[in-house]
Amino acid sequence: MAKGKNPKKERKPPSPGRPWKAWEGRLSEKSDPDVEQFTSSFSFDRRLFPYDIMGSIAHAEALSCSGLLTGEEAKAIVCGLKEIAAEGAEGSASDEDVHMYVERRLIEKIGEVGGKLHTGRSRNDQVALDLRLYLKEESKNLIGAIYNLQERLIDAAEAHLGTYLPGYTHLQRAQPISLAHYLLAYYEMIERDRTRLLDGLKRLDQMPLGAGALAGNPFSIDRLAVARTLGFSSVTANSLDAVSDRDFVVEFLSAASILMMHLSRWAEDWILWSSCEFGFIELPDKLCTGSSMMPQKKNPDLLELIRGKTGRVYGALFTLLTVLKGLPLTYNRDLQEDKPPLFDTVETLKNSLRIMTLLVSQVRFNEKRMADATEEGSLLATDLADYLVTKGLPFREAHRVVGKMVRAALASARPFPRWTLAQLKEHSPLFQEDVFRQMSTAASIAKRRGIGGTAISSIQLEIQKIKRLLKKSK
Amino acid sequence: MAKGKNPKKERKPPSPGRPWKAWEGRLSEKSDPDVEQFTSSFSFDRRLFPYDIMGSIAHAEALSCSGLLTGEEAKAIVCGLKEIAAEGAEGSASDEDVHMYVERRLIEKIGEVGGKLHTGRSRNDQVALDLRLYLKEESKNLIGAIYNLQERLIDAAEAHLGTYLPGYTHLQRAQPISLAHYLLAYYEMIERDRTRLLDGLKRLDQMPLGAGALAGNPFSIDRLAVARTLGFSSVTANSLDAVSDRDFVVEFLSAASILMMHLSRWAEDWILWSSCEFGFIELPDKLCTGSSMMPQKKNPDLLELIRGKTGRVYGALFTLLTVLKGLPLTYNRDLQEDKPPLFDTVETLKNSLRIMTLLVSQVRFNEKRMADATEEGSLLATDLADYLVTKGLPFREAHRVVGKMVRAALASARPFPRWTLAQLKEHSPLFQEDVFRQMSTAASIAKRRGIGGTAISSIQLEIQKIKRLLKKSK
Amino acid sequence: MAKGKNPKKERKPPSPGRPWKAWEGRLSEKSDPDVEQFTSSFSFDRRLFPYDIMGSIAHAEALSCSGLLTGEEAKAIVCGLKEIAAEGAEGSASDEDVHMYVERRLIEKIGEVGGKLHTGRSRNDQVALDLRLYLKEESKNLIGAIYNLQERLIDAAEAHLGTYLPGYTHLQRAQPISLAHYLLAYYEMIERDRTRLLDGLKRLDQMPLGAGALAGNPFSIDRLAVARTLGFSSVTANSLDAVSDRDFVVEFLSAASILMMHLSRWAEDWILWSSCEFGFIELPDKLCTGSSMMPQKKNPDLLELIRGKTGRVYGALFTLLTVLKGLPLTYNRDLQEDKPPLFDTVETLKNSLRIMTLLVSQVRFNEKRMADATEEGSLLATDLADYLVTKGLPFREAHRVVGKMVRAALASARPFPRWTLAQLKEHSPLFQEDVFRQMSTAASIAKRRGIGGTAISSIQLEIQKIKRLLKKSK
Amino acid sequence: MAKGKNPKKERKPPSPGRPWKAWEGRLSEKSDPDVEQFTSSFSFDRRLFPYDIMGSIAHAEALSCSGLLTGEEAKAIVCGLKEIAAEGAEGSASDEDVHMYVERRLIEKIGEVGGKLHTGRSRNDQVALDLRLYLKEESKNLIGAIYNLQERLIDAAEAHLGTYLPGYTHLQRAQPISLAHYLLAYYEMIERDRTRLLDGLKRLDQMPLGAGALAGNPFSIDRLAVARTLGFSSVTANSLDAVSDRDFVVEFLSAASILMMHLSRWAEDWILWSSCEFGFIELPDKLCTGSSMMPQKKNPDLLELIRGKTGRVYGALFTLLTVLKGLPLTYNRDLQEDKPPLFDTVETLKNSLRIMTLLVSQVRFNEKRMADATEEGSLLATDLADYLVTKGLPFREAHRVVGKMVRAALASARPFPRWTLAQLKEHSPLFQEDVFRQMSTAASIAKRRGIGGTAISSIQLEIQKIKRLLKKSK
Repeated sequence: MAKGKNPKKERKPPSPGRPWKAWEGRLSEKSDPDVEQFTSSFSFDRRLFPYDIMGSIAHAEALSCSGLLTGEEAKAIVCGLKEIAAEGAEGSASDEDVHMYVERRLIEKIGEVGGKLHTGRSRNDQVALDLRLYLKEESKNLIGAIYNLQERLIDAAEAHLGTYLPGYTHLQRAQPISLAHYLLAYYEMIERDRTRLLDGLKRLDQMPLGAGALAGNPFSIDRLAVARTLGFSSVTANSLDAVSDRDFVVEFLSAASILMMHLSRWAEDWILWSSCEFGFIELPDKLCTGSSMMPQKKNPDLLELIRGKTGRVYGALFTLLTVLKGLPLTYNRDLQEDKPPLFDTVETLKNSLRIMTLLVSQVRFNEKRMADATEEGSLLATDLADYLVTKGLPFREAHRVVGKMVRAALASARPFPRWTLAQLKEHSPLFQEDVFRQMSTAASIAKRRGIGGTAISSIQLEIQKIKRLLKKSK
Repeated sequence: MAKGKNPKKERKPPSPGRPWKAWEGRLSEKSDPDVEQFTSSFSFDRRLFPYDIMGSIAHAEALSCSGLLTGEEAKAIVCGLKEIAAEGAEGSASDEDVHMYVERRLIEKIGEVGGKLHTGRSRNDQVALDLRLYLKEESKNLIGAIYNLQERLIDAAEAHLGTYLPGYTHLQRAQPISLAHYLLAYYEMIERDRTRLLDGLKRLDQMPLGAGALAGNPFSIDRLAVARTLGFSSVTANSLDAVSDRDFVVEFLSAASILMMHLSRWAEDWILWSSCEFGFIELPDKLCTGSSMMPQKKNPDLLELIRGKTGRVYGALFTLLTVLKGLPLTYNRDLQEDKPPLFDTVETLKNSLRIMTLLVSQVRFNEKRMADATEEGSLLATDLADYLVTKGLPFREAHRVVGKMVRAALASARPFPRWTLAQLKEHSPLFQEDVFRQMSTAASIAKRRGIGGTAISSIQLEIQKIKRLLKKSK
Repeated sequence: MAKGKNPKKERKPPSPGRPWKAWEGRLSEKSDPDVEQFTSSFSFDRRLFPYDIMGSIAHAEALSCSGLLTGEEAKAIVCGLKEIAAEGAEGSASDEDVHMYVERRLIEKIGEVGGKLHTGRSRNDQVALDLRLYLKEESKNLIGAIYNLQERLIDAAEAHLGTYLPGYTHLQRAQPISLAHYLLAYYEMIERDRTRLLDGLKRLDQMPLGAGALAGNPFSIDRLAVARTLGFSSVTANSLDAVSDRDFVVEFLSAASILMMHLSRWAEDWILWSSCEFGFIELPDKLCTGSSMMPQKKNPDLLELIRGKTGRVYGALFTLLTVLKGLPLTYNRDLQEDKPPLFDTVETLKNSLRIMTLLVSQVRFNEKRMADATEEGSLLATDLADYLVTKGLPFREAHRVVGKMVRAALASARPFPRWTLAQLKEHSPLFQEDVFRQMSTAASIAKRRGIGGTAISSIQLEIQKIKRLLKKSK
Repeated sequence: MAKGKNPKKERKPPSPGRPWKAWEGRLSEKSDPDVEQFTSSFSFDRRLFPYDIMGSIAHAEALSCSGLLTGEEAKAIVCGLKEIAAEGAEGSASDEDVHMYVERRLIEKIGEVGGKLHTGRSRNDQVALDLRLYLKEESKNLIGAIYNLQERLIDAAEAHLGTYLPGYTHLQRAQPISLAHYLLAYYEMIERDRTRLLDGLKRLDQMPLGAGALAGNPFSIDRLAVARTLGFSSVTANSLDAVSDRDFVVEFLSAASILMMHLSRWAEDWILWSSCEFGFIELPDKLCTGSSMMPQKKNPDLLELIRGKTGRVYGALFTLLTVLKGLPLTYNRDLQEDKPPLFDTVETLKNSLRIMTLLVSQVRFNEKRMADATEEGSLLATDLADYLVTKGLPFREAHRVVGKMVRAALASARPFPRWTLAQLKEHSPLFQEDVFRQMSTAASIAKRRGIGGTAISSIQLEIQKIKRLLKKSK
C-alpha cells in the first residue's frame, strides 16, 4: 500500500474499450483480478440492460429540464443511449456491472459529456429503478400466463361437467365429484396467485430514482415527472428506504413460491393419475419422455420437473430472506445477490406455466377408468348417513350405523348399493324404499348444489362468474 | 386383526367423560396409545376453541333455518355451546382435537341431540373456518400493533428533525442525514408490512363452511347467511379448494417473515449504535440485561432476541411451504402441521412489535456522538463533486477530482472542510469562494429537498402526509 | 433514568423465594415485566435442568480441587445441588433461565456459600455444556431408535424374500423386484442417518466449560478432569469459539432433516400403497383414523403426519441457520433461539421413528395385489432387450426393437409374454425358442444377482452382512 | 394423438449430427420443442462431461471382461470416448443430457457398435456415478482450500500473539484477548468444516454403477472391479437406493451452509472492524471498491458479498431438501434439479475461500486502535471480582460489589484502574495493595492460561498442536 512502490499498478486514465472503475480517483491500486471476477455482476445483471437504458434516458431528460444539461448535451446522451440499446449488451468480464458498462460505452461514443449522465444519481437508486422496471414487466407477463392457463382450465371444465371421478381425502376415495369441479379447484388456486401478483404490483409501482446514494437528490429534479415518463404511479417516499428496500423482490418470490406449490400439488395429482394404478389420464407421446434402458417406459417427466422446480423457487425465496436478515441500513453489497434468484424464478415460472397450459390442452381424461373408480359403493356412505339424518337420526349416530354397515360390507364383499331393503333394515329400521333413489353417484353429486358444491348447476354458475371476470381482466 | 380375537379391545359405546372417536363405528380396534398421542392436536389446537364455538353456533343456526334442527334442538345446542365456552377448553390428552372435544362435551351436556350438530359439516371445512376466524382477528391485532409502533416513530422523528448523523452505505459513513429521516425509513418499511397484512385479509375473508369433507353440502344450507353471521364478506367458491387451501397461512407467514426481516435490520442497526464504538444510543437499564460473570456488562438483549427470532419466523414459513409441497388434493393429515408454526409466529410478532415500541419510546439518542461523527469532513465529498458539476464539470470527472482530493486529505490528515481556497484550486481551478458556503452538514442536508430527500422541509411534508394517513386508518 | 427518581423501583437484596438477577449490582432499575417475559428462557430451557445440575456438580468438584472451595463448601454445594435435582425444576416465570434458577435455589438452601459456585464460570460456557450433554444423550437415543427400526425392517425383509412387486421409476412400473429388496432400500437410507449421527457425536464430544464468558478461565481449573467426570473425550480448544459455536446443533438438525426426508419418502410410498388403486398394504385399524363425516373412511394418518412433520424439522434447520448468519463473535443473545427448534426436533424424530417401527411391525402386505401388478407383461421389456443383446444386437438397437414391440403390444392389447415365437420373430429374427425361459418375473429377478441386485441370493448375502453389523453395534 | 395423422412428425432413424432420443422406438411422436427445452439438462450437466467419459470407459472395460464386448469392440469404444473427451462437450440444445450427447457422438464416430456401450446400464446409475465422481473431486479441492486458509490464519496468529483487543459479547466490550486467539477461533470453525467434508467423503465413496435403472445388473459385471478402476473403496449395497439416493448432495450442501455461515460471521466482524467507528483493520485498495457517486468511499465489498452469498448456499440446501421431500422410490425426474444448486454451491465455496485467503494475507491490523479500545477500564471488572474471590468473597457477592463500582465509575467518569486503594476500600475492605498488580490488560490475559484460554502460552501450545496436525494432513 506504500505510495509509488509499484507504479505499474497505478491506474491509467480511461481509454476507449477499456472498462474502468467509477472510483479510480479515490483508490490507488488496480483491482486484483480475482476480486474483479468475484465482485462483477455483469454476467447476470446484463438482463437489466434495456431497463437501464430506459431509466437513463428518463434521467437525462430530467437533468435537461433542471438545467444540468443543455439541450445539445441531452440530445447527444439520449441518442447515444439509443444506439447502445440497438447494439445490445456486449460487455467484457471486466465491466463491473450493467450500469458502468452503459456509462463506459456512452463516453466512448459521445465523449466526456457522457460523464454528465451520472449527475445526481447513484448506482444505488439506479439499480432499484432497473429492478422495479424489470419486475413490473415480468409480473404482468406472468399474470397473462396465468390467465392463459385459466382459460384452458375453463375449456376443460366445460367439456367435463358430466365426467365423474372419486374425490380424495388422505388419498383415500371419499365422495363422487365432477371432473369440472376438480379442474376449477386449480382455477381458484391460481386465481389467488394472480391477485397476489397484482397486489405486489402496487408496492412495485413506486419510482426510486432521485434517492441518490442514500440521502436524496441535491438538484431540483422533478421525480414525479420521471415517474410519469417511466410509467410509475408514484415515487418512493424516503431515500434511505428506497435504496435498501428489496421487499418487492421477496414479496414476488413469496407469491412465486405459493404458485409453484400449487403447481407441485397439481403435478403430484397428475403423476398419480398417469400411473398404471390410477390410469385417469393419458399424456400424448410428444409430452412424455422414455427411458434410456427400459424400452416400455413412458414417463410424465414434465410434471415431475414442475414438481421438482418448486424446490428451486423455494430456495430462491430463502436465499433472499437470508441475504436481508440483519443487514444494516442502507445499501450493502450483499444486495447484489438479489438478482440471480429473481431472474431464475421468473424464468422458472414462465416455463412452468407454459408447460402446464400445454398439458391441460392436450391431456386425455380416461372417463371409463374414472367412472369405474367412482362406482365403488362405499363412496356413498356419507349420503347414506345423510339419508338417516333426514329420517331424524342424529348425524353422529347415523355415522356410527353406516360405519358398521361399511365393515359388514367389507366382510361380505358386497357393497351396499347392492343390498336389499331388508338387509339395510337390519342396520336401521329408518331405511325405506326411497333410499335407493339416493344411492347413486349422480344423486350424490346433484345434491351438493350450494355455492361451491360439486353439483353441475353450481359449477355452471361458477363458470359463468369466472368468464365474466376473465373478460373484464382482458 | 382377526375378528373377535381380543374382545376386550372392542370399542365400548361412548360414556360421559370418556373421549371417543368419531369413527368408532367403522374401525374395529381401539387406537394404540402411541398413535393417539402422535395424532392428537388438542394440545395446540385448543387455541382455536373460541372460534370453534363461534363457528358451531353459526352452523347450528343455519341447520335450524334449513329445517334440520327444530327450534328446541337448536336452542339446546346453542346454549350448550355457550356453557362450554364459558367453562373453557379443559380436554384431556385423549381428545383428538378441539372439534371432537367440543362435540363430546356438548353430548355430555345435552345428550344425543348434540350429535346433530355435525350434520352436513366435516372437520375439514370446520378447521378451515376456525383458522380463518383466528387469523382474521390476529391480523387485525397485528395491524394495530404496527400502527402503535408507527405513532412512536413519528413522535421520535418530530423530536429529532434537526439531529444529524452520518448515513451509511456498506457500513461506511456516506452522507449526512437527519435522524428524523432515518426513523421514517423504518416507518416506510413497516407501512408496507401493514398493507401486506391488509391485502392478505382480503383473501382470508372468505367463509369455507359448507364445503363439507370436500364435495360440498347436500342440505340447503345458506352459506352466505353463515358468512354474514360470522363477519365474512364472501364464501369460498370451490369445495375441493376450500378444504385443501392453506394459502392464507403461507401468505401470512411470508408477510410475517418480511416484517421480522425489517425488525432484524433495525435491531442490527441499534445493536451497532449501542456499542461503545458507535455510542449513538443508550437504552435505559430496565430494558437491558447484564452478565452472570462480567460485572460491567449492559447488553442490548432485547434487540438481539428480536434479531434472533427472525430465524424462528423464517423457519415457520419454510415449514409450511414444505408441508404443502407436492400434496395431492384435497385434505391430507399433513395439514395439521400448519398450526404450531402459525400460532408461534403470531405470538412472536406481537411480542416483537410490543418490545420495539417500548424501545422507540424509551431510547435516548446521543446527539453529541452523532454530531461528532457527522463532522468528519469526507462526508461532504459528494457535495464537493456536485459543486464542480454546477461549475460545468461532467460528474464523472468531478468524481475523479474529488476522489484524488480525498486521498490527499488522508495523506495529510487534513480534512478538506479545513482547506484554503488555494489548496482547493490545486485540484481544480473551478473552485471559487462560494464553495465554502456549501461545505457544511447543514447545507448538504438542506439541498436534498426533493420528495423523499433528507432536507427538513421534505421530512416535514412527509410527516404531515403520514399523520393524515394514520388518522384515516384509526 | 434519572438517579433516585423512583426509589421504589430500586432493587432490593435477594430474599428467599424471590428470583433475582445476576447483574443487580450493575443495572440501577428493575426489569420491565414485558422485558422479563420476552427474555426469559426458563419455560423451555428447564429441559436442560438435569444436565445443568450434572455440570454444576462437576464444576464444584473442580473448584474444590483448585482450592477455590474448601472441602466443606464443596460438600454443601454438591449436596444442595443433589437435593435440587431431586425436587425437580419448579421455577417461576421470573426466573431468567435454568442456570439462574438452580443458583437461586442453591443459595436459598445453603446460604451465601452457594454464591461461590459461579466462580470462574459464565452462563456462556455453562449453556454450551448443558446443550452438549443433552444432545449427546439424545443422539445416542436416536441411534438406538434407528437400530430398532432397522431390526424390524430386516425381519420383514426376511419374511418377504419371495414376494414380488413392480419397482417404480417416475411412478411408472419399471421392473420386477423382491419386496425384501425394497425394504432393504430403507435400511440403507436410515443406516446412513445412523452414521451421520455418529459422526456428529465426534464433534459434540468436546467439553466447553472453562471458556468462561469468552476469554478462558483465570483459575487453575483442570478442564481435562472435568471432561473425564462428565464423559467427554476432549475439551474445546479455543474459548472464543467454545461460547459462540452452535455447529453441533446445526449439524444435528441437518442430519435430522435428511432422516425426516427419508421417512417422508417412505411415508409417501406407503400412502400410495394403502390407496384403493395400489392396494399393496393394509394397516391395522388401530393404526388408522377415520373421518368425522364420511363413515367409510380409514385413513393412513400416521404416515401423513410423518410426511408433514418433515416440514417442521426442515423449518428448525432453517431457523438456526438464519439465527447464526452474520452473527459477530462471540456470544450474542440471538443464540437463545437455538433451543426450541432443537428440542422440538428431538421429540419429532423420536416419535416418528417409534411410529414407523410400529407400522413396519404391523403392516400387512397384500401379496396377491403385488403379484398381479407384477405380471403385467411390459415389465419384462428390458429383459427382452437384454436377450437380444446376448444374441449380438447392440443394446441401443435392441432398445429400439423392443420399444416398437411395446407399441404393437399396446395397440393389440396383447402383452408380449403371450406372443408366439413367430410373432416375436416379426420384430427380430434373433428371437429363438430360449426366449421363453427368460420371459418371467422369477427369471428377471434371479438374473440380477450382482452385489446390490434384487436376486434373492444377493439379498440373502446382504442380510447376513447387515446382521453381523447390527450385532456388532449392540 | 391419432395415429398417422401427421406423418411428417414421425421420427426418422438417427443420422449423424442429429441429436436423437434413446426412446424413439417406444414413443410415436417427436417431442414438442417447448418440451425439449424444458426437459433438457445439457446446458448444466455438461459440467459432468469428464466424469461421464471416465465412467463410460470403466463400464466398457467391465463389459469387455464380462464377454459382452469383444476386445476390438471395447477398444473402438474406449478410443472413441477418449477422442470425444479431447474434443470437449460441444452439444446442441437438442441433446437431452450429457449422457445422450456422449452416446450420440460415439455412434457418429464409431458406428453402430457404439450402441453397445449402454448395455446393462441406465442413465439412473450413470448420473449417480458422475455426480459422485464430481463431488469427490470437488470435496477434496475444497478441503485443500480450507487448508490454505488455515495456514494463512496461523501465519497471522503467530504475527499477532501480543496484539491485544477487546473480546466482545453482545457486541459490547467484554474482556481483553489476544488477536492471535481471535484468529484461531476461525481456525477452529473451519477445521470442523474440514472434518465434516471428510466425513461426507466416506458416504460419497461408494460406486453406484451396476444398479441399472433400479433393479440391478443382469449380466455378470464385476462391480468391485469397476469401483477399483474409478478409485472408489466400495460399492452401493442396494440398487433401488443407489438410483434414488441424493443424501451425498444434501449432506454436502449442509456442510457448505455451515461453512458459509462461519464465513458470514467472520465477514460481519471484519465489516464492523473496517468501519470508521471500530477502525481495527484496513484493507488494501486493490481489495476494495468505491462508489459511483460518493468520491470518498472505500467499501469492504468482498466481505459483504461473502456474507450475501451465504443466502445463496442456504437456498441451495433448501432447494434440494424440498425436491426430495415426499418423493416416492426410486428415480424421479425431479432429481434433475439437484445439479444447478450443487454446481453453484461448489463454485461459491471455492471463490469465497479464495477471497478470504487473500484478505487474511493482505489485511492490515490497526494495533493502536485495538490497544486504545482495550485500555478502557471496565474490561477488567471480571478480574476485579475474581480478585475479591481469591480474598474469600463468594463470587456472586463479588459480582455485586464490582457492579456497583462500575456504576460509581460511570457516574464519576473515573475508570477504576485509576482509583486509589482508599477509594477501592470504600467498596470492599478486602482490597489490598496487591490489587494493582492485577489491574492490567497483560495480567488479565496472562491469567487465562488453561487449555483454550487467551494467555499467550496457551495460544502457543495450540499453534504447535495445529501445525503438527496440518503437517500430517498434507
